[in-house]
Parts: sequence; C-alpha cells; structure tokens
Amino acid sequence: MKVVKFGGSSLASGEQVEKVYNIVVSDPKRKVVVVSAPGKRHGDDIKVTDLLISCAEGYLKNGEAPELVATVVERYASIARELSLSNEIIEKIEADLLELLAGDKSKPERYLDAVKASGEDNNAKLVAAYFNHQGVEAHYVNPKDAGLLVSNEPGNAQVLPESYDKLYELRNRPGIVIFPGFFGYTKDGEVLTFSRSGSDITGSILANGIKAELYENFTDVDAVYSVNPTIVEDPKEISELTYREMRELSYAGFSVFHDEALIPAFRAGIPVNIKNTNNPSAPGTRIVNERDNNNGPVVGIASDGGFCSIYVSKYLMNREIGFGRKILQILEDDNITYEHIPSGIDDVTIILRQGQMSADVEEKIISRIKAELNADEVIVEHDLALIMVVGEGMRHNVGTTAKAAKSLADAGVNIEMINQGSSEVSMMFGVKEVDEKRAVKALYEEFFARVMV
Amino acid sequence: MKVVKFGGSSLASGEQVEKVYNIVVSDPKRKVVVVSAPGKRHGDDIKVTDLLISCAEGYLKNGEAPELVATVVERYASIARELSLSNEIIEKIEADLLELLAGDKSKPERYLDAVKASGEDNNAKLVAAYFNHQGVEAHYVNPKDAGLLVSNEPGNAQVLPESYDKLYELRNRPGIVIFPGFFGYTKDGEVLTFSRSGSDITGSILANGIKAELYENFTDVDAVYSVNPTIVEDPKEISELTYREMRELSYAGFSVFHDEALIPAFRAGIPVNIKNTNNPSAPGTRIVNERDNNNGPVVGIASDGGFCSIYVSKYLMNREIGFGRKILQILEDDNITYEHIPSGIDDVTIILRQGQMSADVEEKIISRIKAELNADEVIVEHDLALIMVVGEGMRHNVGTTAKAAKSLADAGVNIEMINQGSSEVSMMFGVKEVDEKRAVKALYEEFFARVMV
Repeated sequence: MKVVKFGGSSLASGEQVEKVYNIVVSDPKRKVVVVSAPGKRHGDDIKVTDLLISCAEGYLKNGEAPELVATVVERYASIARELSLSNEIIEKIEADLLELLAGDKSKPERYLDAVKASGEDNNAKLVAAYFNHQGVEAHYVNPKDAGLLVSNEPGNAQVLPESYDKLYELRNRPGIVIFPGFFGYTKDGEVLTFSRSGSDITGSILANGIKAELYENFTDVDAVYSVNPTIVEDPKEISELTYREMRELSYAGFSVFHDEALIPAFRAGIPVNIKNTNNPSAPGTRIVNERDNNNGPVVGIASDGGFCSIYVSKYLMNREIGFGRKILQILEDDNITYEHIPSGIDDVTIILRQGQMSADVEEKIISRIKAELNADEVIVEHDLALIMVVGEGMRHNVGTTAKAAKSLADAGVNIEMINQGSSEVSMMFGVKEVDEKRAVKALYEEFFARVMV
Repeated sequence: MKVVKFGGSSLASGEQVEKVYNIVVSDPKRKVVVVSAPGKRHGDDIKVTDLLISCAEGYLKNGEAPELVATVVERYASIARELSLSNEIIEKIEADLLELLAGDKSKPERYLDAVKASGEDNNAKLVAAYFNHQGVEAHYVNPKDAGLLVSNEPGNAQVLPESYDKLYELRNRPGIVIFPGFFGYTKDGEVLTFSRSGSDITGSILANGIKAELYENFTDVDAVYSVNPTIVEDPKEISELTYREMRELSYAGFSVFHDEALIPAFRAGIPVNIKNTNNPSAPGTRIVNERDNNNGPVVGIASDGGFCSIYVSKYLMNREIGFGRKILQILEDDNITYEHIPSGIDDVTIILRQGQMSADVEEKIISRIKAELNADEVIVEHDLALIMVVGEGMRHNVGTTAKAAKSLADAGVNIEMINQGSSEVSMMFGVKEVDEKRAVKALYEEFFARVMV
C-alpha cells in the first residue's frame, strides 16, 4: 500500500489532474492520494493558497473581496471545464468558500488557517469527483473524519501521536482515498494548518498512519540534484540517499522539500520516492534508512549564504570552566540559535544565521560577551556561506577531506572554517559569500565531474 | 636589563653552576638570575625537589627522615665541594632545613610547600656564594624581601598584581640579584609555591616586574623543536615563534615549558629567549609578540593522546534553542572541561581529556544527556589523539588545510575530526591514538622536510 502526494504544480490545471489520475490508477497499490491546492500554471501565475490569503485579508479589512473570490473560484472552474466535470461541484465550492469567508473573525490567525486550508480541501473534492467521473471508486476523506488531530498552534500545527491508530483505519476504506493536505483538526474541532510544505507533512503522516510500504512524493523535477542547478549546469541526479543525507542537504539550501516534513515517515522507517508528475517513468530519488555506497563518498553538495561569525578570544580561555556555556547562554537570552562553534584553545567562533541579529542585538551581544566574560577580543564577520559536502560514504573514507580542501585551494577559495565531527556524514566549509559559487563548482568538479586528463 | 632563569639540570652540579656563572657574567645586562633547585645530574638521579617532598612526607608520618635529609644536604655539599666553597654555607643549609622540617605541621599542604620551596631558596644562597667567591658582586634576595606576594593557594599560588611595583625596585639593587624560583609569600607571610615549572613563573614575574628587555630561560635543549623529537628524528629547530604559537604548541604536548608561566612576561610584551646552558652560543628560540613570516605557513606540529569524544545525536537538534548549552552545563556540573565541540546539524561531539572522567562519571554523564536532553544516541569513543598544526602564517594561506589533509590521507590516517576556526593560527586534527605518530610524521614531512622528487 502506498501513499502518493501531489504538489501544487501537479494539480494546477485539468491537464495536470489528468496526469495525476493516470499515475494513481496505473498502480493499484496507490491507495491514499494527498493533494495540494492548485499551484502555478506558469511562472507569473499565483498559487490558489496565496489568493486565499489575500481573500482572507480582504475580508478581515473590508468585509469582502469579490474579485479575489471570483479568481479563486475560476481556478477550480477552469480545471473542472478542462476535465468536463459538471458545474455543480464548482457551485458547491463557491458557496462553501463564501460561507467560510463570512465566518467568525474574532481570532484572525485561526480564520486565516481555515481559509488557507480550503485550497487543499476543495481541490481534494474536485480530484475525487474527476476520479469518479472516470469510473474509478475514489472518496474524498476529510481529515477530521479520518482522525488527523493536531496541536493548538495556528500556522504551525503538529500532529498529535494519538492520530496514528485512527489513521490506520484508512486502509480499510473502499476505493482510493483522496485526502486534502496541509491541515488537521484540533481536539476542539478547529481547522489548523501545518507549516510550509504542509501537504508533504500530511503525506508523511498518512504514510506512517497506514504503515505504507512507500511514500511517493510527486513534484515537478525528475530527481533531487547532487548540487544546485543554478550553480552547476545539468548536474548529476541522486538516485538514492538516506534520511540523514537528505536532512544535511536540506539544511543548507536544498529546497526540494522541507526536510522536517519527512519526520513521521522517517520514524516509521518508510522509504520516500520523489518523482516527477510530468515524467512519471523516471525513477526519481529514493530516500531510505540505509543505502549501499556504490557511487563514491559524496552524494550531494549544498550551500547557503547569510551566515555570520562571532569570534571571541581570551588568553587561557580553555582553563575556564563554563566559558562556552556562558556564551551560549548570552545567545539564548536573545533567542538566537547558532549553527556551529569551532574553537581554538583560546578562542571560539560562533557561526549563526545573521538574519537573526539586528544591529542593536548584535551590539548588545558583543558588549555582553566583552563585559561578562572579560573577553580580549570579539569580532563579528558578516556575509559568510556554509557549504555542506554530504555523503554516508565519507564515514571513514580516508582522503575525502584532502580532496575537498585541495579543490577549494586550487580554485583560490580560502577556507574560513572547517567543521567535521564524528558523524562524518557531512563536512562543512565556511567561506566568504562572494566565494560561494566558485567553491561549490570546484567541489562538484572534484566529486562528480572529474574532467578526464 | 635581562632576567635569566636557570632550570634544575642547569644547576645540578658544580660544573653546571660554573656554566651558569660564566653565562651570567658574560653579559652585564643579566641583572636578575632566577634559580631552580638542583635537578638531575643523570637519568637515574633524583631531583632535590622530589627528595624534599619525601623528607616532608617522612616527617609528617614518622617525625623524622634522617637518610633523606642527609641525601639532600649531600647534594648541596657536593656542589659546594666542586666549587671549592667553604663548608659553612652547607652547615647553614642543613641547620635551616632541619629547623624547617621540625616546624608546624598542622596544615600539611602548607608545610609541604615550605619544605619544597627550600630547594630553590638554599640553591639561590649557594649560587650567590659562588658568585661572591669568584669576586663578583651578587646578592641572594628573598621573595618576601623583594615583595613577591601570592594568593593563598598552596601548590598553585598566583602572583598578586600589587607585587609588580615593588619588584621594579630590584632594578636598583647593587650587583647581580640571585633570586630563588618557585615560591612567594602570602600577605600573612607564609611561603606558598607556584604550580609546576614554578621557577619559569618566577622568572616571568620578575621580567615583568623590572620591565626587562628580555627574559632568558636557560634549559638543556638548544631550541624548541618544530615537532616532538621522539617522533621525528633530528627535527628542525624553531628560531622564533609568537606567544600564540607557543601556547597552541604547549597545549598539545610541547613540554619545553609550561605555557602559562609566560603570562606575566606576555602581558608586559617582553620577549622570551629559550637557550641551552650547555651550549649558550646557540641562538635558541625566541618567543615574541609578532614575527615575520619567512619560513612557510607552519611553525610547529604538536600532538597529545588521552582524549575521548562524546558524540550526541538527536534528530532536529539544531532547532532546539539551548541544546548545546545544556550539554555543557551537564559537563560543568562535574567540573569537566572540554576542548572542542565540533557539530553537525543533528549531532554534536564533545572532545575532552579522558583522564577527567572515571567510568562512573562517564556513565552518569551519558545517562544525564540521554535523559535530560532526550538524545537519540550518545556514543563515547576513547583513545583519541589531537594533533595541532600551528603557525601564524596559516592565516589566509589558501591550501594549507588541503596539504595537511592530503598528507594524512596519503599516510592512510583517517581524520576523525577537524577543527579550524576563524583564528587560523592552528588547525586541529583528531585521529585515533594508534595513528598519532604516523600522522605527525606525515605532517612533518609535508611542511618541513619535503623529500626532493
């Protein structure tokens, strides 16, 4: 039994919904289908979710937003026309949406969540109608009805563990289950949405719930690339990677999907297959618990800019019990998270996302470190990029570090910082942001595209 | 004006004291001479300080230790005979020592400190007598008389800042000042000793006190070597290194002297020259604030074993504010200091000296990390070595990391961990202890002894 999730671009038009239908019915194991709201049909298009957010804002501000509502309804209507579905379902969607928008606005966050969630909910109904129209038994299932309970956090709801037993019963439903992504219900019966990429989360939860053999995540790329294709042209596709590798790659800029979405599937040990709705015969990328290492130590390279470092030095620092802990406490007091803390004997460097610190907060933190820890020197360097070289095969592979460092040296990139701990699933290099692309290219050349000599 | 300090082996026999005399009088700037207790004359010999500790222990236990006392006195007597000094001074030393040993034992730690300190104190008197015997004006100066005040910590006394102004007056003393190393006086007039290498500390304090132009530290090697000579045969000598470099090298096993001894000289910006009593014409090694980088990026390589790592992993660790701080707090609760904390996204590794943790404490810490931080995995790995590759020239020297990592890879050494922060005065590699020597040799070959191709 498989859970199949389709992203917004896979459901943006009637033509796309047809592809979805063909994909689902081509494999009888595809039991549960999770749908997103219609996404962009072309680069300038607006996602239905974004239109709905505007609708809700219009209603909150002016009590109405007739043009926006018409635009949303027309998105569904155009899909229905393309698929030769009766107008009845569109009338129902319009009536439901107007009723929802007219509803209780005393808690704007919750109102917004409910309106956003309708994007997925109505699309699931539409998709179910098309499957039925094609003569296939399929049923829209509401998350409340299925027992998908979430915590009371608008926009960032977390699945409640007691949901899983109830969700297991989806296995016994007749026909194909068409399930809206992105939201669940609180114990009080309120609709609340997950964080971004919420449909991925729903798919992952359902895969866990029904103990699926596979969670197929259909998107609009053939596979996860080994490196950012805007930096390296036509990069190698990754056929298989482990959860850990995926997480390390996601961390530093791989945006195929939000890595946290995978947690429920990961906890249940269910493999994930990222596939392309527009090219379903391509094998895609499999995310698994363990994999054979058969194609070199490195599986992917990711990078992200926008980091800064706080360098703190104090003579005899390493004799002072509590020095590091006190620095971290100062950051914690301002809710600042750090990424890495490489240290020398008498110095420590804290690497963090610089967006977290306003100039004021930065100044305050520097003063506190100087004053409370009596530091000799505190220096902040901005605009750093972190590059992750990721691969389970790097574990105990003698020489990977040397190769990586040499390729950076040959490209004239100075390594500001290296961090490699015992996990050895990844190796991190800190470089100046201006060197980021050059560095990534050099590493890719070294590990994936060694030019013949 | 210079402060000149002589170690125990430089004063172990009459022949050695003659060398000291010749060194001091050959340069009229050598105003203050700091002396250690007589050290070993040959490999199987016992240092006077160690004999004194045994004496004190004998008196504490049995109220006497006649043979040990005789052995101590004979050490001084043999030096006096070699130097043709009258027996009067030896009789005085014996009488003083017996009086001291018979003294108040109600606070054993303080009693021990006073007995230990007599080794230096009596030797300073003997050396001063020899200088006088040679017709040179020289005066034994007692630390109390000179104003060397220390904190109330037996065996680990710290100089009190108010000492320096008083010590400056040593400049105005007539002739050469012969000053016993290793101890000072509390404000209550009690003798307390510094930590190990205490005579180096005294020399450093006096250099600061009299604002010396140079602090000469005479020992029994021609220079600081660029690498441990028990690992690499006949290694390159270091002619000049900065305080920072010295500190990084000392940290990981360079035992020429205790790096903290240099702090008072460092704070006053006074250069230190490590020289050989047995070969005083050799230039030795200069330790300075800044140096020209004229001989490659790396100045030295040091290593030390006996480290362990605690690897902690938890999925989504890096979203948890306070995770790292809490781990450090757990260590702090048991007074455990760590050396480095390389981290991945979902894991952090704490490197520390394993001697700090008994099996019980280790178990307790593991349980606490698991229980209080809900960690997925906590793994302790023992018997690691840290290798420091040190050099101010590494700062922004593209490719040093690559060279170092490649040399280790070529030697078949797996790098368990790398730590390179913004300071870039050093680069640290963690390897298994069994690989330590091989790794150090490979790095030395790479940076110092590149074989001609």
